[in-house]
Amino acid sequence: MKTECRFAMAFAMAFAAATAVAADAPTDPLVIKEQGSFFVDGESVFTENAFGDPSHPLAALLDAPGHITVNQMYVEYQIPQDAGRHVPVVLIHGGDLSGVTYETTPDGRMGWEEYFARQDRPVYVPDQVSRARSGFDVRAINAVKKGLQPVSDLPLVFVAPDEVAWTLFRFGPEFGTPFADTKFPVEAADEFSKQVVPDFNLSLPEPNPTIGHLAELATDKLKGAILLGHSQSGLFPLDVALINLDAVKGAIVIEPGGCNNSVYTDQQINTLTGVPILVMFGDHIADFSFWQDNFNDCDAFVQRVNDAGGNATMLHPPDLGIFGNTHMLMQDENNLQLADLILKWIDQNVE
Amino acid sequence: MKTECRFAMAFAMAFAAATAVAADAPTDPLVIKEQGSFFVDGESVFTENAFGDPSHPLAALLDAPGHITVNQMYVEYQIPQDAGRHVPVVLIHGGDLSGVTYETTPDGRMGWEEYFARQDRPVYVPDQVSRARSGFDVRAINAVKKGLQPVSDLPLVFVAPDEVAWTLFRFGPEFGTPFADTKFPVEAADEFSKQVVPDFNLSLPEPNPTIGHLAELATDKLKGAILLGHSQSGLFPLDVALINLDAVKGAIVIEPGGCNNSVYTDQQINTLTGVPILVMFGDHIADFSFWQDNFNDCDAFVQRVNDAGGNATMLHPPDLGIFGNTHMLMQDENNLQLADLILKWIDQNVE
Repeated sequence: MKTECRFAMAFAMAFAAATAVAADAPTDPLVIKEQGSFFVDGESVFTENAFGDPSHPLAALLDAPGHITVNQMYVEYQIPQDAGRHVPVVLIHGGDLSGVTYETTPDGRMGWEEYFARQDRPVYVPDQVSRARSGFDVRAINAVKKGLQPVSDLPLVFVAPDEVAWTLFRFGPEFGTPFADTKFPVEAADEFSKQVVPDFNLSLPEPNPTIGHLAELATDKLKGAILLGHSQSGLFPLDVALINLDAVKGAIVIEPGGCNNSVYTDQQINTLTGVPILVMFGDHIADFSFWQDNFNDCDAFVQRVNDAGGNATMLHPPDLGIFGNTHMLMQDENNLQLADLILKWIDQNVE
Repeated sequence: MKTECRFAMAFAMAFAAATAVAADAPTDPLVIKEQGSFFVDGESVFTENAFGDPSHPLAALLDAPGHITVNQMYVEYQIPQDAGRHVPVVLIHGGDLSGVTYETTPDGRMGWEEYFARQDRPVYVPDQVSRARSGFDVRAINAVKKGLQPVSDLPLVFVAPDEVAWTLFRFGPEFGTPFADTKFPVEAADEFSKQVVPDFNLSLPEPNPTIGHLAELATDKLKGAILLGHSQSGLFPLDVALINLDAVKGAIVIEPGGCNNSVYTDQQINTLTGVPILVMFGDHIADFSFWQDNFNDCDAFVQRVNDAGGNATMLHPPDLGIFGNTHMLMQDENNLQLADLILKWIDQNVE
């Protein structure tokens, strides 16, 4: 069966429901049972390079050998009052970004974190290992600064310039020019630029510790969760399912850089038939070969999982008459309409 | 009048109220009118060093010149349903830490952020500029990595090893040994270590951009706020008051590294008579000369402000029979009891 056909069947009802909802942000009070934050895992290491300048006036206070923690993962959470037996949802951000991705939109509208909580879902939002409130490992920077290690040992850390993000995230065909139908709040692009934080993922050990930490979170802490990954973390829900299938009640894969279709073995695909999978891409895929390749790879992956007896769905809003969505679809102007589509899929396939 | 006498008068009623409250964490639902996050300020700069390795396979995608944003300040917030006309409270974290300081305690109890919201206060929690979700400036690291700048241009970034934090934060007299009466949840010291994130403050321009951003937050966004600073940010509330007195409805100065008493001019002190000021220190001050010096300087500052006609109070819990509090008193076992003392001071002096 072609993906489009499977999609049309699975989402006929969802589409009707979603278009009926005007997707205005709810304004009634948000009632929270419990909220806070915690860290998953992390490694205590001994270092003499917690500080980088032995001649600094504060060195007497701060430059001492000792133990620091690296590779821990920060998680913020809210459990709504009426969560009942709803499965927790873990919202994982992409490259150069942090959990802020789901907290708000650049133009200050409601993010998916709050919206999912308002739909009675317990919501967990990590900062990936080595990003934002998860900190990062300073040892190599300080060792180089002190002349103890060569410059080549400096970590590879990057931020996406606005010019790169604009086209890579498909706000428009070239920097400063949005697609006529873009759903991204391009008037707030400067605010989006502030959400971009340095990304050390290319310097992390393999496999990325975030994946193991997500498995621990979903297994030990949450006793089963729906994992939603985006872009850089798009395949993390599948990676976690391959570590502990029981812990992943649903895998939502949004705008990944491909679906590893040429990498997954048949045995892995067979494992992945045990978890409901939703893959989602925004619009204007065909305008960028990079994204068309990613989309095609995921389309083939969906087919392959279903051919093996699994339950995978490709959700491509243009097929529903919803146009102009970007890579940052959780921040697009119709972000709550898209959230409703995901919630409907959860209701029909997970709960 | 001696500080102790002023304190005794101001807090007689507060003490009675605070000791009557058992300070058990409230368990009723938290009702939120509005929540989210935003960024204050930030500077768009052009760089060719957003990526640090032109030979990397991903360089074709990521290594492009362009504009990035630096020195922005992340702020998360919650406005409770019954906030009414309560003045917003801004909770500012200290060195090597982030807003997580106020979100939770290392042993997973309720933090001041939620507790203040449960007392109907709009609460705003920033990550200082160049810390955690505020990101940091990668340009120098990448320029050094690419051989374009000397190693000495690397930023000075540090984390406090557990061994340094233990005594500097007065958990006990030496690493691993707590004071017999310590209120810090030392059994969760490993979790506290995970909250420690790299700190670039020693590499920031002077004055620290966080101070100006806090002034902008308190002035333009909040139209007046109570600022609470801790340790590294302890004096930020006073710094902001000296920028715009009208914006600071109350200045709460917790465990600063001294009170700049030898720095402030008489004119500055005269300005500071226009804002209610609360200075707060934990216990075991006399065990560390560094802290005794800081305490004495603040004690003299309180005296000086009051002699000039101001309203400054030194809150030292041991004077109330509350012993064993540490530098991290917002995370100590009696953190909600201490929050009640602060709330009482706010009610009596600000609102």
